[in-house]
Amino acid sequence: MDRQRTRAVVLLSGGLDSATCLAIAQDQGFEPYALSFRYGQRHEFELQAAERVAGQIGAAEHLVMNIELDRIGGSALTSDSDVPKHDNAGEIGDGIPSTYVPARNTVFLSFALAWAEVLGASDIFIGVNVVDYSGYPDCRPEYIAAYERMANLATRAGVEGEQHLTIHAPLSEMSKGEIIQRGIELGVDYGLTHTCYDPQPDGRPCERCDACHLRARGFDEAGIPDPLLAGKARSGD
Amino acid sequence: MDRQRTRAVVLLSGGLDSATCLAIAQDQGFEPYALSFRYGQRHEFELQAAERVAGQIGAAEHLVMNIELDRIGGSALTSDSDVPKHDNAGEIGDGIPSTYVPARNTVFLSFALAWAEVLGASDIFIGVNVVDYSGYPDCRPEYIAAYERMANLATRAGVEGEQHLTIHAPLSEMSKGEIIQRGIELGVDYGLTHTCYDPQPDGRPCERCDACHLRARGFDEAGIPDPLLAGKARSGD
Repeated sequence: MDRQRTRAVVLLSGGLDSATCLAIAQDQGFEPYALSFRYGQRHEFELQAAERVAGQIGAAEHLVMNIELDRIGGSALTSDSDVPKHDNAGEIGDGIPSTYVPARNTVFLSFALAWAEVLGASDIFIGVNVVDYSGYPDCRPEYIAAYERMANLATRAGVEGEQHLTIHAPLSEMSKGEIIQRGIELGVDYGLTHTCYDPQPDGRPCERCDACHLRARGFDEAGIPDPLLAGKARSGD
Repeated sequence: MDRQRTRAVVLLSGGLDSATCLAIAQDQGFEPYALSFRYGQRHEFELQAAERVAGQIGAAEHLVMNIELDRIGGSALTSDSDVPKHDNAGEIGDGIPSTYVPARNTVFLSFALAWAEVLGASDIFIGVNVVDYSGYPDCRPEYIAAYERMANLATRAGVEGEQHLTIHAPLSEMSKGEIIQRGIELGVDYGLTHTCYDPQPDGRPCERCDACHLRARGFDEAGIPDPLLAGKARSGD
């Protein structure tokens, strides 16, 4: 029954944004090919989450590429330096945080572009948004637009003029609460996702890193409980 | 004595173009950081060549990243399909050849961008040129210009306005013969390089693939013998 659907490559981290993005691509009628990366993260929980999410939403294929961004370094997410934590969400800084991974989205989109060309896909989805931006340069709309212009010159299609590649960032203008509400409408099970930068040994969220604080704000805004924290009275903010 | 030189990342395949590009970056006063990729090539000879070249020219560091473009496929260079061969260089086609690797330069430049950011470098060198273009979309000047625009929005510098990233493609407008003449002036030992797409088991060039034909044309045009073929009367074209 999938034979007439147009293929799209969807970047899938296993977090709630990319899970929602995958569901949106599916809802828009695309046949989604989910792409994740083992790039030297501090833990495997988000890749396990990505696999669960790809299965639940029904990706046509889920490809996990092994890259080695940790050998390049430059980020608290791929090194031994500490992930910043605070008890109060108000302490999230305005600058570029230490969890920024140099050129990460550029690297991820480049593999998505390669896979899209092989699949004959003209559409790539990425779950960047203004909230998760939190100072990351490669989440901004002007960056995504510049990437799309470059990508349209980078591939066979750019020479032959046969198709036009689109980078979709459907969450770009949505708040975390709106993202969660949209995902719930589309049937996303957020209990399968993983958000925390620095989880406990059993994978449970730390509830004190920037990512946990942003997730908690989103569920508060959406007015629903986070299924990952079910049965637990939340403390702090 | 290198403490005052400005760092630059130089993409180095081990072929004659990138070897020349590395020597040019060095000659322009940069401290070159050479970056190569194990991306599922059919052989290791070009990476061995890259290591020799980086040593001879004097790169500050040579990093070989393992990526897995072969899992994405789409090219004769990373699959079991045959590399096209001809006895006559005139048979090189005008279209995009089967040796094109989807989005390869986009992927390579993205890792270069990540490393440049960590090194504090504002300059990236890539040895693309109009001859080697031979139908590859991601060797064209308009592609490089679009990549540079994107890259300037992708990193911390793009947000903070502290520096301006430049993608240098110094070979872009040079013929193969001019590239070789320039390299000889700069002391490049082309006997250390590797060009062939499909070498013999001992690493010697096949002399029949497009890459071998373009290399032979270049040495003919430069009016000097190819040191890789020293002591051997060339046959064919």
